[in-house]
Amino acid sequence: MMSQFSQNIAKPNNNTELFSDHEKWMARALEEAWKGVGLTSPNPAVGAVIVKNGEELGAGYHRKAGLPHAEREAIADVVARHREDALKGATIYVTLEPCSTAGRTPACTDGILENGIVRVVYGAVDPNPDHAGAADTVLKAKGVEVHSGVLEKECERLLRPFAKRITTGLPWVIAKTAMSLDGRITRPPSEGQWLTSPESREIVHQLRARVDAIIVGGKTVRRDNPRLTLRSEQSSAEKEQPWRVVLTYSGRESLPQDFHLFTDEHKERTLIYQDKPLDEVLRNLAEKGCNSVLLECGGKLMRQFAEAELIDEYQLFYAPIITGGEDFGFGLGDHFKSSLKLKEVSSQSIGQDTLIQGVVER
Amino acid sequence: MMSQFSQNIAKPNNNTELFSDHEKWMARALEEAWKGVGLTSPNPAVGAVIVKNGEELGAGYHRKAGLPHAEREAIADVVARHREDALKGATIYVTLEPCSTAGRTPACTDGILENGIVRVVYGAVDPNPDHAGAADTVLKAKGVEVHSGVLEKECERLLRPFAKRITTGLPWVIAKTAMSLDGRITRPPSEGQWLTSPESREIVHQLRARVDAIIVGGKTVRRDNPRLTLRSEQSSAEKEQPWRVVLTYSGRESLPQDFHLFTDEHKERTLIYQDKPLDEVLRNLAEKGCNSVLLECGGKLMRQFAEAELIDEYQLFYAPIITGGEDFGFGLGDHFKSSLKLKEVSSQSIGQDTLIQGVVER
Repeated sequence: MMSQFSQNIAKPNNNTELFSDHEKWMARALEEAWKGVGLTSPNPAVGAVIVKNGEELGAGYHRKAGLPHAEREAIADVVARHREDALKGATIYVTLEPCSTAGRTPACTDGILENGIVRVVYGAVDPNPDHAGAADTVLKAKGVEVHSGVLEKECERLLRPFAKRITTGLPWVIAKTAMSLDGRITRPPSEGQWLTSPESREIVHQLRARVDAIIVGGKTVRRDNPRLTLRSEQSSAEKEQPWRVVLTYSGRESLPQDFHLFTDEHKERTLIYQDKPLDEVLRNLAEKGCNSVLLECGGKLMRQFAEAELIDEYQLFYAPIITGGEDFGFGLGDHFKSSLKLKEVSSQSIGQDTLIQGVVER
Repeated sequence: MMSQFSQNIAKPNNNTELFSDHEKWMARALEEAWKGVGLTSPNPAVGAVIVKNGEELGAGYHRKAGLPHAEREAIADVVARHREDALKGATIYVTLEPCSTAGRTPACTDGILENGIVRVVYGAVDPNPDHAGAADTVLKAKGVEVHSGVLEKECERLLRPFAKRITTGLPWVIAKTAMSLDGRITRPPSEGQWLTSPESREIVHQLRARVDAIIVGGKTVRRDNPRLTLRSEQSSAEKEQPWRVVLTYSGRESLPQDFHLFTDEHKERTLIYQDKPLDEVLRNLAEKGCNSVLLECGGKLMRQFAEAELIDEYQLFYAPIITGGEDFGFGLGDHFKSSLKLKEVSSQSIGQDTLIQGVVER
């Protein structure tokens, strides 16, 4: 389900021949990690591959908080597919520095040592400054060879939501909006609701499957009676419904109580915040374990999030129309104090639409 | 200089192996034709290739109104490179139906017949309904084999500006604007004038080289003191300075007389229209021989052109910034009566920017 995003991440360039062996296997570990994106909060998505004599013995990824970490999954995979002693002398590739302290599950460094794995290659350092690099010390003390920083940027990209929450107490915020080429979010009244193509709306469902909460404004709810569910079958089977967060000035009572958000099978996953500062809302969601949040709100609220510099990533869909209307994707008003600049910008055709993605430069 | 545009046009898909021989040679003729884009008004850009026994004997394109047509250029090229009788039994590929009546230059059908060319393959039919298909009759009557409609869509695309003027009395209008991702055309005051990258501005110069006139509003002139010249050396050597058209409510006297447009070496190529209906301005430019016009105006005027459905093609540059300001690429106001829909939409990265191109569906 993550093909579009995993492709962006797993391959730093198109020429795989330029990869070193370490990079080749780390790309495989990233492939595994991407399977867990959106499923693991408050933990990060992590993938691991175990290799011996140039062959992949097994692989795994972290599936859900409380279940084994990626390293343990990969070890179990090897044991299931080979004899247990296959692990002796093997190398494990893991996208994130292995944990060296027991949490809800035992420390991964122990699993590595117990099974005779002799080399650990990891991508990103633990974003928690208290733990960063701790695995190196534990493993090297026992004679295990450690390499770090392989495909580091790609591994860090995958970790961003977790790292943001761990280091700032705020979730990674993705702003999604669908606009006409002239920046409007509505069409003339005679033309119906949708600006973008079914293909773009499918991508929006993939985005929802990446996040732990979806934020909309009361106005959007009143106008659209949205479900904000995961319509893609594959994702909805594995993934818990993201929180459906409604920001409103006038409280729950102002919203029709027979709407989907209050009556469907996920109604306990609907949250209302009345007249709360946006950063407080986000902090509260982070405390609930949300690593990432998707904004699907209208122009006024989107503008407030943007202006307050609370947005980390933009996913902007442009439909091939010019409408001239009054509702803008980023509202109306004066210039921001300074422009928000995006980096890692890419554009692609999605059906008839163009998707421009980027991450805010800070 | 036309590489970006000629690539879009000359290759209907990336797999040249799927081309038939006719398509292969027509693609070569299109390549020739593109060399003349922007140079030939009021004539169209046309290219021709002469082939015998699977070999290219010569090629040519129409360079300028009053100079020989593409067919005559290609014939002259063959004569210069081979013996004159090389033309006997040859096939000529030409992007546009050959002219069969003498104008400023003699009829091309005569040149074809006189030189013993036995087969004519052309792309687009003459857009002038009085002439359409006339060449077929003339040539077939003399025993020449005629094929038409090869890469027809690509050949017609190249002809659009000419066809628009011939059939409607209006030029082909290209709207170019550079916006932030939120549809704004200005940055916060502290940040300087440019939204887009030098690479995008280079493409704008290529666009200018395609057209016969550039339209701006008085406000843009007063604010920027623009030159609206062709800075690309290659293009400015071959090409006449496009008309620089200023639309103003308050007349020439309201514009600073020491500005570039009134004092530089191209000052006789500056036109002022005071308070004229937009379609009248365009009609007048068509009468001066303009096949194509580039709008480089601000949001208010751009909106008027768009709303009046006078724009044929959009070239929209999106800089990777969000500015939140008050000046929109397509102004402020109510929805248009109906949305303008674009077809043949493509997007590409230009430096850090994204260029979305499309043609209005009518």
